[in-house]
Amino acid sequence: MNNFVFYSPTYFVFGKEQENNTGKYVKRFGGSKVLIHFGGGSVVRTGLLDRVKASLKEEGIEYVELGGVKPNPRSGLVYTGIELCHKEKVDFVLAVGGGSTIDSSKAIAAGAVYDGDFWDFYQGKAITKALPVGTILTISAAGSEGSPDSVITNENGMYKRGASGEGIRPAFSILNPALTQTLPTYQIACGITDICAHLFERYFTTTSEVEVTDRLIEGLLLTMIKEAPRVIEAPEHYEAQANIMWAGMMAHNNSCGVGRVQDWASHDIEHELSAVYDCAHGAGLAVVFPAWMTYNMKHDVNRFAQLAVRVWGCQMDFNHPENTAKAGIAALKHFLKSIGMPSNFAELGAKEEDIEKMAQSACFGNGRQGTIGGFAKLNDKDVAAIYRLML
Amino acid sequence: MNNFVFYSPTYFVFGKEQENNTGKYVKRFGGSKVLIHFGGGSVVRTGLLDRVKASLKEEGIEYVELGGVKPNPRSGLVYTGIELCHKEKVDFVLAVGGGSTIDSSKAIAAGAVYDGDFWDFYQGKAITKALPVGTILTISAAGSEGSPDSVITNENGMYKRGASGEGIRPAFSILNPALTQTLPTYQIACGITDICAHLFERYFTTTSEVEVTDRLIEGLLLTMIKEAPRVIEAPEHYEAQANIMWAGMMAHNNSCGVGRVQDWASHDIEHELSAVYDCAHGAGLAVVFPAWMTYNMKHDVNRFAQLAVRVWGCQMDFNHPENTAKAGIAALKHFLKSIGMPSNFAELGAKEEDIEKMAQSACFGNGRQGTIGGFAKLNDKDVAAIYRLML
Repeated sequence: MNNFVFYSPTYFVFGKEQENNTGKYVKRFGGSKVLIHFGGGSVVRTGLLDRVKASLKEEGIEYVELGGVKPNPRSGLVYTGIELCHKEKVDFVLAVGGGSTIDSSKAIAAGAVYDGDFWDFYQGKAITKALPVGTILTISAAGSEGSPDSVITNENGMYKRGASGEGIRPAFSILNPALTQTLPTYQIACGITDICAHLFERYFTTTSEVEVTDRLIEGLLLTMIKEAPRVIEAPEHYEAQANIMWAGMMAHNNSCGVGRVQDWASHDIEHELSAVYDCAHGAGLAVVFPAWMTYNMKHDVNRFAQLAVRVWGCQMDFNHPENTAKAGIAALKHFLKSIGMPSNFAELGAKEEDIEKMAQSACFGNGRQGTIGGFAKLNDKDVAAIYRLML
Repeated sequence: MNNFVFYSPTYFVFGKEQENNTGKYVKRFGGSKVLIHFGGGSVVRTGLLDRVKASLKEEGIEYVELGGVKPNPRSGLVYTGIELCHKEKVDFVLAVGGGSTIDSSKAIAAGAVYDGDFWDFYQGKAITKALPVGTILTISAAGSEGSPDSVITNENGMYKRGASGEGIRPAFSILNPALTQTLPTYQIACGITDICAHLFERYFTTTSEVEVTDRLIEGLLLTMIKEAPRVIEAPEHYEAQANIMWAGMMAHNNSCGVGRVQDWASHDIEHELSAVYDCAHGAGLAVVFPAWMTYNMKHDVNRFAQLAVRVWGCQMDFNHPENTAKAGIAALKHFLKSIGMPSNFAELGAKEEDIEKMAQSACFGNGRQGTIGGFAKLNDKDVAAIYRLML
């Protein structure tokens, strides 16, 4: 196991109706003038926004509003948010939504207390300072509610990049599984895929002797495999949604990823897809991951076999572990299909002729040095080959 | 799943030689005059104390020292520590040792900023305020490095009681597995048992639909089962010690225990044993847990069977799940014996004639209302029957 620091100081409030205490938590973490940041109409339609505003009013907390966050959140709205923070002297950013809204809120919170262009952070500058951020999560997926990360799409060129830093870990996150009971099935499935992807990115490692984090990741994947079909069949299943929601946070606050090299090439490969075709991040990952696994199995077939046996319940072929590894990948494909995820370029709306351009961008875009991935170092030829496995 | 709050803001620094950065972390968390609290000679003998002091000096941080913490830490030394804090104007308590030293440090830190008797906290008063505490962990066991809990033995009557509160969560904890490589095998085995016990206490619940925390607990238990024999055979095995150390923290910071009723009767039952006979807490738990399980299996035989199948690899007897449940308990007994733990009263030095008195104390002592345990409510007759299963 490698040396590491683990620091997850977010105050997690989990359960039914907890959003009605938002004002109390904003106050606890020092907010007096709040920017409420959200996406489309659903938080308005469901009455969630009204409940949050009522809770702020109850504590005498002022607020301004900025809606309009889209999936794969854009840089333009971040600039608008930063301006609004300056003009209105905002001291707290409250995200009401999913990963896109939270990531946009983090970008605004960092940019609001920074003299330069906020995009500097998305080109590698660590975020050490930001306005405090609170979140009210409406979909289990990105894990942004417990992470120090944010991903934004630059509208000037349409490419996605991530930023990171302790400064943007949420001060508090309210996780009410009931808020996810009315989501469309497709969105739920995208979220489930994203959670599983966060676990795979950590699972595939070159670090030996990491049994404790292996077992934690496997435990979270087993949870997802049990609960996913239940929420796809009946999104109103509170208990299943609750298990998925906590798994989603644990999958990405890094408690199960510490002390080990992680991969993250699949996320880079997917980010090209969702930036170019504006597909859902989870749907993109559903297409990328089986291809990435098939291509990279050769680097550590035993690790793929271990995943197949422990998580997918495959029988170990002791003489031919590659057969077990393949059975695991087949099980993953079957699982993703069963929850309604796409399995190839066509279903995503992606095009073969863009492969070379995307492979270049994934490996060289925005300061990258020609390879991506921690488990397997992939160059643009590897990435193009992986894209072709998705045809 | 029940509603819950999860808050674990401790800054964990994990890995080789990290204790040499102690001064830096004390400074980060506001310490300028430190009480270094420790146990016996081993931290002196191994040179650990000198390295810690050198690190404090490097940052210009003053300190005073208080050694002498014993296993099952006593109230007397806590009073001494509180006085020392007042006299020397200490603003930070640094625990260098295991669970006993950390628990004693937490008690001192809380008592130092409280006008009344610190024992009030061990009679149910929540600890909301304390001096910041830092820890340098020397044995994987109690999980106190990541918990808001402390257990102290009152010398006036020799009984153990726990206190809890966000105020005593460590500000930082330094976890260097190399510090555990020189421990005697018996102490390592006691620590392993304590970690497993923290997981069992959370596993046995009356809350339904808690797959995510079930799976996390099982993952940590599977880690312990893999790594325990390796460190018992060769305590110098860094990687195995590292996996156990992170599992020990995760077992008790409650990330795997949230949203579910927990039990904790076995800890209450054991506390009587270690208070009366001064046996090691882990050794006591090794005797208590199989007896507690045997007695309480009837309350939810499927849960015991699930543990047996998922953790101990037992075959499910679908027509007679109680057989599977029993096989799991037998596997636990075998595991504990294999790492050198005692299995009965005689090996602990405990006496049959004390059973009634201990059962009374466990159920009625210090303000308790006659029953203990969240999974199964046990009265003094139940507890006495459990003690008799240990004969």
